[in-house]
Amino acid sequence: MFPLNAWYVACMAHEIDERPLGRKVCDLALVFYRGAGGAVAALEDFCPHRGAPLSLGRVVEGKLVCGYHGLEMGCDGKTIAMPGQRVRGFPAVRSFPVVERHGFVWVWPGEAALADPATIPDCPWTGKPDWAYGGGMYHVGCDYRLMIDNLMDLTHETYVHANSIGQKEIDQTPSTTQAVGDAVTTSRFIDGIEAPPFWKMALRGNGLPDDQRVDRWQVCHFTPPGQVLIEVGVALAGRGGYAADAPSKVSSIVVDFITPETGQSIWYFWGMARNFKAGDAALTAAIREGQSKIFAEDLEILERQQRNLQDWPQRELLKLNIDAGGVQARRVLERLVARERAGRA
Amino acid sequence: MFPLNAWYVACMAHEIDERPLGRKVCDLALVFYRGAGGAVAALEDFCPHRGAPLSLGRVVEGKLVCGYHGLEMGCDGKTIAMPGQRVRGFPAVRSFPVVERHGFVWVWPGEAALADPATIPDCPWTGKPDWAYGGGMYHVGCDYRLMIDNLMDLTHETYVHANSIGQKEIDQTPSTTQAVGDAVTTSRFIDGIEAPPFWKMALRGNGLPDDQRVDRWQVCHFTPPGQVLIEVGVALAGRGGYAADAPSKVSSIVVDFITPETGQSIWYFWGMARNFKAGDAALTAAIREGQSKIFAEDLEILERQQRNLQDWPQRELLKLNIDAGGVQARRVLERLVARERAGRA
Amino acid sequence: MFPLNAWYVACMAHEIDERPLGRKVCDLALVFYRGAGGAVAALEDFCPHRGAPLSLGRVVEGKLVCGYHGLEMGCDGKTIAMPGQRVRGFPAVRSFPVVERHGFVWVWPGEAALADPATIPDCPWTGKPDWAYGGGMYHVGCDYRLMIDNLMDLTHETYVHANSIGQKEIDQTPSTTQAVGDAVTTSRFIDGIEAPPFWKMALRGNGLPDDQRVDRWQVCHFTPPGQVLIEVGVALAGRGGYAADAPSKVSSIVVDFITPETGQSIWYFWGMARNFKAGDAALTAAIREGQSKIFAEDLEILERQQRNLQDWPQRELLKLNIDAGGVQARRVLERLVARERAGRA
Repeated sequence: MFPLNAWYVACMAHEIDERPLGRKVCDLALVFYRGAGGAVAALEDFCPHRGAPLSLGRVVEGKLVCGYHGLEMGCDGKTIAMPGQRVRGFPAVRSFPVVERHGFVWVWPGEAALADPATIPDCPWTGKPDWAYGGGMYHVGCDYRLMIDNLMDLTHETYVHANSIGQKEIDQTPSTTQAVGDAVTTSRFIDGIEAPPFWKMALRGNGLPDDQRVDRWQVCHFTPPGQVLIEVGVALAGRGGYAADAPSKVSSIVVDFITPETGQSIWYFWGMARNFKAGDAALTAAIREGQSKIFAEDLEILERQQRNLQDWPQRELLKLNIDAGGVQARRVLERLVARERAGRA
Repeated sequence: MFPLNAWYVACMAHEIDERPLGRKVCDLALVFYRGAGGAVAALEDFCPHRGAPLSLGRVVEGKLVCGYHGLEMGCDGKTIAMPGQRVRGFPAVRSFPVVERHGFVWVWPGEAALADPATIPDCPWTGKPDWAYGGGMYHVGCDYRLMIDNLMDLTHETYVHANSIGQKEIDQTPSTTQAVGDAVTTSRFIDGIEAPPFWKMALRGNGLPDDQRVDRWQVCHFTPPGQVLIEVGVALAGRGGYAADAPSKVSSIVVDFITPETGQSIWYFWGMARNFKAGDAALTAAIREGQSKIFAEDLEILERQQRNLQDWPQRELLKLNIDAGGVQARRVLERLVARERAGRA
Repeated sequence: MFPLNAWYVACMAHEIDERPLGRKVCDLALVFYRGAGGAVAALEDFCPHRGAPLSLGRVVEGKLVCGYHGLEMGCDGKTIAMPGQRVRGFPAVRSFPVVERHGFVWVWPGEAALADPATIPDCPWTGKPDWAYGGGMYHVGCDYRLMIDNLMDLTHETYVHANSIGQKEIDQTPSTTQAVGDAVTTSRFIDGIEAPPFWKMALRGNGLPDDQRVDRWQVCHFTPPGQVLIEVGVALAGRGGYAADAPSKVSSIVVDFITPETGQSIWYFWGMARNFKAGDAALTAAIREGQSKIFAEDLEILERQQRNLQDWPQRELLKLNIDAGGVQARRVLERLVARERAGRA
C-alpha cells in the first residue's frame, strides 16, 4: 500500500559509481546507472534478451552493457545494439523518471508523464555553506508506514533510546499535530529544561553558554510518500524558543527518507543536517557515527512489530493522541493511493 | 495437533531473570516475566498500543513496561498505565495460567478456567536431598509426537547412539507396553548382563560391586501432553531387578518435557535426576555434559524425518511392536484433542 | 519440466564411499550406496518403518541399515530384516535403475522397464591412456535449461568470463546450429587468430610451435536430457582446422552433465578431458582449478536470471540466432516430455 506516482529516494548519489546498482523500489526490480555525461538512468533490471539482471553488467561509454551476452541498453529502455544482431524488433524495458538532487537519486515508480521534478521535496540545507550533512542507509524488514509512525511519535525515544537521546521530559510533554493539505506536522515544545549533552556541545560551538536553562523543540514534518524531516533545537530559555532570534539558538534537522522495497521492507535513508560548526568534518563524522548507533536501536522493534502485525492481522491498533502524526500521515497516503486507483480504473 | 488444555513446560525457571522472555508455545507468541513478588506471569507477546512484542520491554516494579512507548502492562493482560494517556478503554491481551514448579515454568495455553495446578505432573526428585538434577533445552524442528515416538522406543539407542549409550542387548530384548487411562508405559528388562560404564560408576558410587552381572531396566512413562519420564537402573543380578531392595540397586530418571512451539517444531527440555552421589556437583555437570551430546545425536534424524514426512504426506508409517509406546501415546493425544474440539463445538 | 525416462548423472563415483549418499534428483529424494560387491544401488531416501532418511544410515555387508531403528534394506527396495520383527508385510520403497560408468553414477528416475544402459552417453575419453580427465560439481539455483542455454551459446564467454577465457573474436564470429534427431550441435570456427594462452601451452605440450596463427573451434554437442560436450581446440592455420590431421592440432572436450535437483535447481557436473600431456597429473589439477574458478563465474548470473524469470513469468525471452542451440535443445526436451506424458495418459 504505497503511492506509485511519487518521488522516492532510491539511493545516495555516491552508491552509483562506474558500476550499475540493482535495487528494488516499490516492488519493482530496478537498475540505476550513470549514462552519458554522468546523468542517472533507471530501468527495469531485466535484459530483454534472456532476462538476466542488467545490474550485473557494466557501463561502457554511457551505455549499460548486459553482463551475460553484451546487449547494449539505452537510458530509455530501448536496445541500442547487440553483437551480430539487428535489434530493431527488440522489446523495450520500462524506464523510470529519475533525478539526482540533494545528494540522493530520486525515482518515480509510477506514471512517467506525471513526474514533475519540481515536486521533489526541498532540502533546506543543500548548497548552503553554513550547513553540514551526514547520513547513511538501513534496510529494515517492516512496512514503510511503521517507520513513519515511529518518526512522528518521538515518545519512543524515552524507551527505545533510553541510554542515548531519550529523556523523561519528552514522554511527559504533550505534542500537537496539524495536517495541512498533504503535509502533517507534529510539534513538541519543552521549556526551561537543562540542555542534554548533544545540545550543550552545540551551544558551545555557537558561542552560547551551556549552563543555562533552555527551551527545546522537536517539530516533525511528514510529506508523502515517505519523507520525515524533524527540526530539533534549543534556545536560551525565554528568548522565544523555536521562534527565537538566530543568535539565541542552535538547531539541526533530522532527515528521514523512507522508501518501500516491498510491502514489508524498506530502504531507510537517515541523516542529520546542522547549521553549526558546519566546517568541522570530524564532528560530522562523529554525529553520523552516533546517529547510526541510535537509529539502529529501532530496527529490532520495528521488524518484530511487523511480524506481530502479520501474525495477528485482525487486531486493531490503538490510535492515541501521541499517534496522531502517524495516523494523519496514513490518511494522506490512503487518499493518494485511492486517487491513483481511481485514476487507473 | 496438540491439546491446549494441558500444562506445558515453557522454560526453565532460571531463563526468566529481571528481563522478560519471549517464547512461542503451541503457536501462541507469549511473554513470560516475573511480576510483583517474583511470581511468573504469561501474556500474549503483543502490546495493545502498537503491536510491539512486550518481550522487548522490561520489568519495572513488577509491571511489564513496553519497550516502544512505555505502556505498563499488568499480569492479567490489562493495561495499568501509559504516560499521558487514560487507559481505561485499552483492549486487554490474553493472560495465561502459569505456575513455577520443579524448576520449570508451566503454562496452560488453553481455557484458563480449566487449569488446575494440581494436575502438573509430579517430579519425584524435587525437594529431596538424596536426589540431584541437571538438564538443558534444545529447539528441534519436528512435530512433538516424533520426539515422543523417539523416547517411547529406545531401540533407537542401538543405532542413533551406537557410540555412547546404545548396545545390542536393548535391540534384542522385547519391550511391553501398557496404557492405563491417559498414561502409557513401555518397559524393557534385560537380565544378567554386564553393566555398561555409566552404571558401573553408579554401582561404585553406591558402595556396590561393579564386576558382577546385573539386571537392567528401562521403563518409559508417557503422560500427556508431552512428558516422558524414563526410569533407568541396574540391580545386582538375581535380587529382583527393578523390584530389588534399595541397597541392591542404583537408578536414575531420564527427564523429557516436550513442548510444541508450532506444529513442526518443539522446545525439548531434557535432563537426568539421580539418587546416587547426589551431593557431587562435578558429577552432575559431567552427566549433563554427556547427556547434552548424546541427546544432540537425535536432532538431525528427527528434523530430517520431519521433512521426509512432509514431503511424502500420503505415506502410512509402520506400527511395529517396538512402536507400541508411541502409537498408544498418539491415541491418548488424539482423544484429548477430539474431546477439546467437541467441547468447543 | 524434465524427462524422467532418461539417464542423469547422480554423482561422481567417488562421492559414494562406505557411507550412503542422499541426493535429490528430478524432485525425488534418493539414497545411493554400494551394495554387495560394491555395485551402486539407488532407492527412495525413506525408511518404510518411520520415514527417516536411509541416507543417515550405514552399509553393513552390502545392506543399507537405517540409522534410526536398524531396518535392513535391500537393493530392490524391499526390507530384508529388522531386529525382532517379521518384515514380510513391510511396504517396499521404490528402487531406481543405476549404473556406474565413466567415473559417474547414472540414475534413471523414470519407468524402470525402459532403462537401457546402452543409452548412457558415450564418453570418448574414458579408458584411453592418452586422455586425462578432471572435474567437479556445483549446486546452482536455476532451471536446468538455463544452464543448457548457457553452454550452447558461448558468446557469453566474452562477458561473463571477460577476464579469463572470453575474447572478442568469439562474440564476433557467427555460429551455426544443427539438430539431428535428439542431438543438437552448435559450431563456431574462428580462423587465423593468435592462440590464447591456454592453447599456446597445449601446442607446446604437443611439440607444436606456439607463435603461429591458428584456426580455433568450439563445437557444442547437446544430447538430452542434460549433457553438453564441447569440443574445443586449435590447429596450425591452414591445415584444415577442426578437420586437420592429428599432428597439426591439439584439442580437448569440455564436459557438462546437468542434473535437475528440482525445477529451480541443479547439480552441475563440469570437467575437461584432454588428449595432450595426459600423464601430467599436476597439469590436470591446474586445469581443474582454473576451470572451477571460471565456471563459478556463471553461477550468480544464472541464479539471478532464474529469479528474474520467476518474478516476470509473463515475459517472452528473445530467441536470437546465437540462442539457436538452446532453443533447439528445449524443443527436444519438450518433445520428450510430451511423449512421456502421452505415454502415461
